[in-house]
Amino acid sequence: MTPDPLTRATQRLVRRLDELGRISDEPRKLTRTFLSPAMRRANTLVDWWMRSAGLRTHVDAVGNLIGRREGPRPGLKTLLLGSHLDTVRDAGRFDGALGVLLPLVALADLRRRAVALPFAVEVIGFSEEEGVRFASAYLGSKGYTGQVRASDLRLRDAKGVTVREALEKRSREGFSLPKPAHPRSSLLGYLEVHIEQGPVLEKKDLSVGVVSAIAGQTRGRLTLRGQAGHAGTTPMALRRDALAGASEIVLLAEELARASKPLVATVGTLVISPGAPNVIPGEITLSLDVRHPHDANRRAALAKILAAAERVARRRKLACEWTPTQDNGAVACSPEMTALLAASVRRVQKRPAELVSGAGHDAVVMSAITPVAMLFVRCRDGLSHHPDEFASPADIEVALRVMVDFIERLARKHT
Amino acid sequence: MTPDPLTRATQRLVRRLDELGRISDEPRKLTRTFLSPAMRRANTLVDWWMRSAGLRTHVDAVGNLIGRREGPRPGLKTLLLGSHLDTVRDAGRFDGALGVLLPLVALADLRRRAVALPFAVEVIGFSEEEGVRFASAYLGSKGYTGQVRASDLRLRDAKGVTVREALEKRSREGFSLPKPAHPRSSLLGYLEVHIEQGPVLEKKDLSVGVVSAIAGQTRGRLTLRGQAGHAGTTPMALRRDALAGASEIVLLAEELARASKPLVATVGTLVISPGAPNVIPGEITLSLDVRHPHDANRRAALAKILAAAERVARRRKLACEWTPTQDNGAVACSPEMTALLAASVRRVQKRPAELVSGAGHDAVVMSAITPVAMLFVRCRDGLSHHPDEFASPADIEVALRVMVDFIERLARKHT
Repeated sequence: MTPDPLTRATQRLVRRLDELGRISDEPRKLTRTFLSPAMRRANTLVDWWMRSAGLRTHVDAVGNLIGRREGPRPGLKTLLLGSHLDTVRDAGRFDGALGVLLPLVALADLRRRAVALPFAVEVIGFSEEEGVRFASAYLGSKGYTGQVRASDLRLRDAKGVTVREALEKRSREGFSLPKPAHPRSSLLGYLEVHIEQGPVLEKKDLSVGVVSAIAGQTRGRLTLRGQAGHAGTTPMALRRDALAGASEIVLLAEELARASKPLVATVGTLVISPGAPNVIPGEITLSLDVRHPHDANRRAALAKILAAAERVARRRKLACEWTPTQDNGAVACSPEMTALLAASVRRVQKRPAELVSGAGHDAVVMSAITPVAMLFVRCRDGLSHHPDEFASPADIEVALRVMVDFIERLARKHT
Repeated sequence: MTPDPLTRATQRLVRRLDELGRISDEPRKLTRTFLSPAMRRANTLVDWWMRSAGLRTHVDAVGNLIGRREGPRPGLKTLLLGSHLDTVRDAGRFDGALGVLLPLVALADLRRRAVALPFAVEVIGFSEEEGVRFASAYLGSKGYTGQVRASDLRLRDAKGVTVREALEKRSREGFSLPKPAHPRSSLLGYLEVHIEQGPVLEKKDLSVGVVSAIAGQTRGRLTLRGQAGHAGTTPMALRRDALAGASEIVLLAEELARASKPLVATVGTLVISPGAPNVIPGEITLSLDVRHPHDANRRAALAKILAAAERVARRRKLACEWTPTQDNGAVACSPEMTALLAASVRRVQKRPAELVSGAGHDAVVMSAITPVAMLFVRCRDGLSHHPDEFASPADIEVALRVMVDFIERLARKHT
């Protein structure tokens, strides 16, 4: 029995993910950062695969690799597909890459079956999403959507090179801030396939799920100041222990988030001063990260946590100070595209699945110029940003079938 | 009106504390460590003050400065008084020094008034108590009491010099482990005056207090292992957050200690791994320090805390591991000496005061060869090991009057 063409296409896709995953700036681990030598080699390889799928390719002003197939006649809208080709340090081989390579085998299958698409298609391999080299994320999609700012160009990497210098060295010409690649009116939307980077699909025993929204995120530092003191000579009743106060706050943030699904609240760092086994902690600085798909809920939750923290601080005679460091609004996925994608998921997977993305993605930035949708693929143990990151061929095949079905549905809708 | 002789003696004592406090191994801060150049200069100065008080002086094999006044006839027992002359880095000028210099002006006053003492007296300035140079405390009193071990001699300082090398360089001869300075039967006891290094006397508005016991101490590391994960993509219900578990343990240790006065329990350090704002803490190691004047209570409290920690860990699916690093038994002060001292305190201060020492002192080591008693002096804000450490002249005068009264009571008792 001959295997199904999409099963064979999946095998090809998995081999390509392996091959791309060996292109790295560091020996024995996968690291590809914005405009690095490995990114150039990765682009050369993906460019070949794009052209093999019948796309015409170019690299834009911020290093994004773009493959385009025109529609059957001029003036048709464009469907955007893609993700990023850069990685974190010591990364896995699925985060980003899957969303660039999967559309290529999907389009190859549609071409093989001569499915007529009443729109143009662009597959984008974004040059930067992870924020590793310049500690600023989304340089690729910001460039594509015309959202790079002059201040972004002045960011410096660890060697002191600015974004502008890196871009001008690559292009060998002066860099000017790019405009959006397309006017909004010419776009159908953007679909991104990405590994989940979380445990929800695994827990539900599902291969893929449709993303309903990308959570908004508030991040900041909470500092509590009490009184350091000798751990042996200071009676409990006379203490102003900053760590005990912080512990209450960790637990009340956890309790609130547990009771307010899908809210997530995380204290990921906690610095103690003075920090010796025989000294009562006098000062604590902890990080707080709060996310929710609805901005109002996120803001209300943060306000509740901070109010409770202040009550704890007052009762314990601690000074309490909140310093916000990041505040990103939630992005709702396009209801129309998401409904279409959900129909494809129901058809292929038999079971529907909707979830929220707690992490940011290129789709967040792309939502500035076009409706967005996202398909998440189960990853083992929810693990990502780690060499053991893994999505199974079976799950990848489900995602591929969903994308092919989605593009055909979209084609029927626009015919 | 001529000021009272003990008021004048206090003024002299305060001037001497200032003068001694300027003898340091470091510019612009007070640091004197075991056998350092500043310790030699400090010994020279204190030796002069000892001889001025009518004592005959010598330095023993581990660098302790000892001043002795014989009794009126041979064969009488010896009363020991003293504390240490070394300091922590960037120290205050009262910790240790007060307990060496105060007996000298007390003995000078008794000599001035020709009070007959039916015993010999030794004032000891211990060469090492703080454990700064060799990260091992009590080298002075261990030497005096014959408790230095061969392993102590192999300890190395930051420059790689061993204790043995430092001792032999000082004495210019081979070092052999010293025997106790006196047989137990020839000693009356050891009285140490020390600043409280805690806030209890200040809170009670008292100048001095009698120490009933020196708390025993257990110290160790508790490690909790959960599962690191993405702060955005891992729902609350699927988390195994090691910091949330640790926070419960911090609070239950605090709650138990509050309910079990005079138990103190302290988490002074807490290390998070991975430790990033957007990563759920996968592993925590925290320090736990538990002290109580009764060993059975301390052990019971530790067992309760660890049992509760294991319940927390089980409920949260965390691995939990306890590694004890230190375990020192409590030292009860001598009931007879302490009763005598309390009588002196009642007479001088009008109000009695008894408290537990949560910190270790030379008296702990001295208790191996003789009954011990301690008198604590109020220090401002409970602050110690800091240049702002301060005991007021008025409080020091109370301590001086208590010591003079105590020695006279002891003399009457032994006449």
